[in-house]
Amino acid sequence: MLGYAFMGKAHSNAFKKIAYITWPPPLLPRLVGIAGRNEQAVTEAAQRYGYGYATTDWQRLVADDSIGLFDNGGPNALHAEPTIAAAEAGKHVICEKPLGRDAAESFEIWQRVAATGVKHLCAFNYRFVPAVRLAREMIDAGELGEIRHFRGRYLQDWGDDASLDTWRFQPDEAGSGALGDLGTHVVDLARFLAGEVSSVSGFVKTFLPGRKVDDALEAAVEFQSGAVGTLEATRLALGRRNAFQWEINGSRGSLAFDMERLNELQVFRADGDRARGFKTVLVSETSHPFWEYWWPPGHIIGWGDTFVHELHHMLRAIAEDTEVGPYAATFEDGYRAAEICDAIVRSGENGRREQISFRTL
Amino acid sequence: MLGYAFMGKAHSNAFKKIAYITWPPPLLPRLVGIAGRNEQAVTEAAQRYGYGYATTDWQRLVADDSIGLFDNGGPNALHAEPTIAAAEAGKHVICEKPLGRDAAESFEIWQRVAATGVKHLCAFNYRFVPAVRLAREMIDAGELGEIRHFRGRYLQDWGDDASLDTWRFQPDEAGSGALGDLGTHVVDLARFLAGEVSSVSGFVKTFLPGRKVDDALEAAVEFQSGAVGTLEATRLALGRRNAFQWEINGSRGSLAFDMERLNELQVFRADGDRARGFKTVLVSETSHPFWEYWWPPGHIIGWGDTFVHELHHMLRAIAEDTEVGPYAATFEDGYRAAEICDAIVRSGENGRREQISFRTL
Amino acid sequence: MLGYAFMGKAHSNAFKKIAYITWPPPLLPRLVGIAGRNEQAVTEAAQRYGYGYATTDWQRLVADDSIGLFDNGGPNALHAEPTIAAAEAGKHVICEKPLGRDAAESFEIWQRVAATGVKHLCAFNYRFVPAVRLAREMIDAGELGEIRHFRGRYLQDWGDDASLDTWRFQPDEAGSGALGDLGTHVVDLARFLAGEVSSVSGFVKTFLPGRKVDDALEAAVEFQSGAVGTLEATRLALGRRNAFQWEINGSRGSLAFDMERLNELQVFRADGDRARGFKTVLVSETSHPFWEYWWPPGHIIGWGDTFVHELHHMLRAIAEDTEVGPYAATFEDGYRAAEICDAIVRSGENGRREQISFRTL
Amino acid sequence: MLGYAFMGKAHSNAFKKIAYITWPPPLLPRLVGIAGRNEQAVTEAAQRYGYGYATTDWQRLVADDSIGLFDNGGPNALHAEPTIAAAEAGKHVICEKPLGRDAAESFEIWQRVAATGVKHLCAFNYRFVPAVRLAREMIDAGELGEIRHFRGRYLQDWGDDASLDTWRFQPDEAGSGALGDLGTHVVDLARFLAGEVSSVSGFVKTFLPGRKVDDALEAAVEFQSGAVGTLEATRLALGRRNAFQWEINGSRGSLAFDMERLNELQVFRADGDRARGFKTVLVSETSHPFWEYWWPPGHIIGWGDTFVHELHHMLRAIAEDTEVGPYAATFEDGYRAAEICDAIVRSGENGRREQISFRTL
Repeated sequence: MLGYAFMGKAHSNAFKKIAYITWPPPLLPRLVGIAGRNEQAVTEAAQRYGYGYATTDWQRLVADDSIGLFDNGGPNALHAEPTIAAAEAGKHVICEKPLGRDAAESFEIWQRVAATGVKHLCAFNYRFVPAVRLAREMIDAGELGEIRHFRGRYLQDWGDDASLDTWRFQPDEAGSGALGDLGTHVVDLARFLAGEVSSVSGFVKTFLPGRKVDDALEAAVEFQSGAVGTLEATRLALGRRNAFQWEINGSRGSLAFDMERLNELQVFRADGDRARGFKTVLVSETSHPFWEYWWPPGHIIGWGDTFVHELHHMLRAIAEDTEVGPYAATFEDGYRAAEICDAIVRSGENGRREQISFRTL
Repeated sequence: MLGYAFMGKAHSNAFKKIAYITWPPPLLPRLVGIAGRNEQAVTEAAQRYGYGYATTDWQRLVADDSIGLFDNGGPNALHAEPTIAAAEAGKHVICEKPLGRDAAESFEIWQRVAATGVKHLCAFNYRFVPAVRLAREMIDAGELGEIRHFRGRYLQDWGDDASLDTWRFQPDEAGSGALGDLGTHVVDLARFLAGEVSSVSGFVKTFLPGRKVDDALEAAVEFQSGAVGTLEATRLALGRRNAFQWEINGSRGSLAFDMERLNELQVFRADGDRARGFKTVLVSETSHPFWEYWWPPGHIIGWGDTFVHELHHMLRAIAEDTEVGPYAATFEDGYRAAEICDAIVRSGENGRREQISFRTL
Repeated sequence: MLGYAFMGKAHSNAFKKIAYITWPPPLLPRLVGIAGRNEQAVTEAAQRYGYGYATTDWQRLVADDSIGLFDNGGPNALHAEPTIAAAEAGKHVICEKPLGRDAAESFEIWQRVAATGVKHLCAFNYRFVPAVRLAREMIDAGELGEIRHFRGRYLQDWGDDASLDTWRFQPDEAGSGALGDLGTHVVDLARFLAGEVSSVSGFVKTFLPGRKVDDALEAAVEFQSGAVGTLEATRLALGRRNAFQWEINGSRGSLAFDMERLNELQVFRADGDRARGFKTVLVSETSHPFWEYWWPPGHIIGWGDTFVHELHHMLRAIAEDTEVGPYAATFEDGYRAAEICDAIVRSGENGRREQISFRTL
Repeated sequence: MLGYAFMGKAHSNAFKKIAYITWPPPLLPRLVGIAGRNEQAVTEAAQRYGYGYATTDWQRLVADDSIGLFDNGGPNALHAEPTIAAAEAGKHVICEKPLGRDAAESFEIWQRVAATGVKHLCAFNYRFVPAVRLAREMIDAGELGEIRHFRGRYLQDWGDDASLDTWRFQPDEAGSGALGDLGTHVVDLARFLAGEVSSVSGFVKTFLPGRKVDDALEAAVEFQSGAVGTLEATRLALGRRNAFQWEINGSRGSLAFDMERLNELQVFRADGDRARGFKTVLVSETSHPFWEYWWPPGHIIGWGDTFVHELHHMLRAIAEDTEVGPYAATFEDGYRAAEICDAIVRSGENGRREQISFRTL
């Protein structure tokens, strides 16, 4: 594991829960080592989560032959080099989103990692929310018909403090602000649910004086399928704590979601029932995605549990040598999200609708 | 009254209720005459609502000296000529939205009517929803601080029927589809709540084969204040019947609204309360806008009642010779909304962000 | 009309709207006269609503042969005598709820009015909320299966003011407090939706020092069908303005409702759909009860409009000589609600479950 | 650990998470042994959760001197004997709810365990939902003023299957049906939030043919403080999966809650704000109960995490030799809940309001 803070905690917790919640686990994770910049903090993290050792030098992890999976939960500036090095050392790799700080860096990570033949997963964990997976399954099954609209917005408010100066607010370390942090999630689920993006028209925006990264983004979007909608993200929507809200309208029904109520999916079916409306579906039935691992219906899970599903998926892909995609995001998905985010920035700068084209290997 | 259908019914109902709900009324409306294209239908409407006479010739209304207020609820193609003629005959005028079928026609209506000196109101009735007025009052009082975001979307689903062929689907009669019908409402409340728009980047979209007007619009928007957001409207969001939803985020709080629950306003205040969250405010207190006319708190009003407030406002402006704006939309507001809508169309065509500039008299 | 205050306004508004909203109306109401205790107020009310004359002597209305329908919206103590007198003078009668101040008075009103052969309606207007009628239709059609539970609670908070001293707080004038005002509504809809009540176990409660009527009631209830549940009402639930909430569970589905969102019905069907949950049904479709009179779907109605439906029902019963029940409450329903309310009081006093038995004519 | 099924899983998961989520933990749990009736199942559970050994003989756990805390998650009929034996062997004890199958058995467990001087906790885990604890803190701080109403209902629907025949439907093993399973939770939170109960009037009810335990209970309740309300529980509310809903009204405000949205608390403050209404508080702020252990605000936790808080509380009580109550339920609380539940049964049988009196040691 690289990183012991927010993502380090989330991933470590998931690895530990996989061992008994997803029973039997595809592989039994052993927490070999953890790396981080602050020696005291990384030492405490190793003790807390039960890693075999702590180190301030991530290269030690790369060089450790007993490690089969390298999980990069470090700051964005530390995504490329360690991830590539680990893959080139033959380890399967997980990398937190955004994959790189921009499309070019993301492409390079994908390209070099793909060349090694290891499994790679970009940790867009919201694909592993049961309600999101259920949505995808319904769409794949044609239950929404032809998709016409996707509107996604990720609203938080913790950015409303000009004194914040963690790495997330340093352009060199983060690459961008709300764009890479929240906007990539919106883009990823847009692609996951509504298909590939073909154009964006919009911009990023910085509100707070002295802030060096963007606070928000706004864009109109077109999909290859002909669907249209909007993409938004902001750290300045006061009162919204983790409101990743999206709605998708098709020719046979609609779905809506809010991450603050992540156990619920709003479902409308154009089935002619006189009692017509959106259902509030508590996604916790035995027949629902991932629910075989959990509790009786109605006993909800938490945000942290989405990582259990995600890392379990990766372990199974390794154990069974199956594809990481399409249910999980690969590094190609990480790169494509970056390409779309960069296009929003360019659109803001040049005032033009940006057609999206993706590089291939 | 010109028009006996949807808007004719809504306006007639309002004129009748003003007489006793808003007591004492500023002026006691007398329903002199009603005009419409179908003789049988307009005759029945006159009988139903109590108009003195029915006519298939709107010029008769214009020529009738006993009429002091001309209310145009006809199809869009019939907005310009009768409204201008009535104003030039010295009558105060109300015209349904959109004012004209495009910015040029809207400007002409405004210009020629303004030249007569009569009162003019463009019937953006959603300004007269109590929750919307309360929102405006809170914003004016600084309770939201500096506005950072406005995101508005008007979602309906009745357009999902390719066989529809009323005047609303004829380009000549309607001018546009979802844009003029729903999009103008979004633009008007954006301006009413977040201030003047400075640019739009987006497009309109037609989904249904054979449909001659747009089904939807999507745009990223900037305001003169620096606020940013999105504007959307569609007639194809299955499951949404009248979901004009908007959210506004400021530096001190946020507000959110859904027309399907028009008696409620969601209010977030950044006041440091440990119990932090959006309040669901039932806008029905004695101290709330327009509530002096209605029932005890919690006894909600309906969509039709917004017209009571709007037309009462117009009658008072006439009786007391006060300004129609800024709480009601004037024809200038009607023109400006059209200018912004046209810019969205142009942006879609030329792929560029459109800076908005308004003509003045 | 007897009464010019809250109920006088609600009924007068309804009579005026029936004339054009329910087109063609079964009878065209003519507002002949209005009676009330305060001469100035009743005179103004006559002018405001267009009654032919005002009087402080309700006997004048009773003696007026041009009046065919006597509508009693006066205080509870004025329900019995004028209503009976009007009926005995051959007029059809409407009486606000509670019918009498207790079961004995209510029975007498029913008995004496029934003996005259006129039509009688006890104004439990919530039976005329579209969502409530839709619920009844669904239950009648077997869509809920066998009913197992009804839980109803009417929560308001305006009673939290010890200085209130209108007639509603005088035992002689009101008969009771929350019981007659709110509890009767709960009892009436319990009977309307879940069938006849067989027993109650509970009590009334007064919280505020010096208050002479009850503030709240709480009861466990059994129905003749075997269904069970609770009945509650209070004027001291801070934050609840008009929250008449009920839920009904059957062997095939469930329904839930809140009067603060009176246009919505929550519907659960046990139909095996993997997407399982309550639908939020906006009761505003062309196929929904009463909606033929109103607006396009999603354009909601208000609390006051329930009276339009109720009084229209009465006019049609008169015009067509049809039964007032079972969709409207007759005076027998008014009496039965009182019998059940009295039983709750007795249960509170004697600490026993009270079996309900009803007197018949 | 005694029990490997639903509660065994929930408790085991909690012990494992405590070790790193609540950092540093007050005591580091070591999972010594697990007992259960089915040898294969208990063996697999030991392997799955990492218990040192598995046994079909709970007496082995009692006899094991290396065990300091005995956690009884077995069926109700197995609560008394093992729990008492473990306590008498000097182990601290946790016992799932209901403590015993009736008040007499519950009293005996309490009495005999209390006599040993060990720590005892009855696992009413819903006291450890952050929103519930926040409610308690607000009430304790006087933020609700004097409590007037508590209405609690626990609605599930899984019982609607006549073929179910697990121990939960055997009177000998379970003691009761919905009463002990769900009703005790309602009673416990009623006492936790509104204070001690003084009387109940109600009954239990069995709907399904052949079912030997109750399906539902309904009661009106009085509290020693003078507050009044209702208590309900059912396994037959179709569409409700885990809807433990309660509302509490005081003289200064109100709170409302639904376990299906366990991260949210509805808060109304009578503070005179013109924007008046219930706040939807996402209980996930740094300043909120238990949140120091978790994620950034808005990143919700799950049902299973309530056990982390509960068992952590017990470990801390042991480590620091502090009281288990009042935030956790002791065996006295377990007994008192049983006394109230028994009173509801008696009230149903004898048709009388039952005054509650509690035995003391």
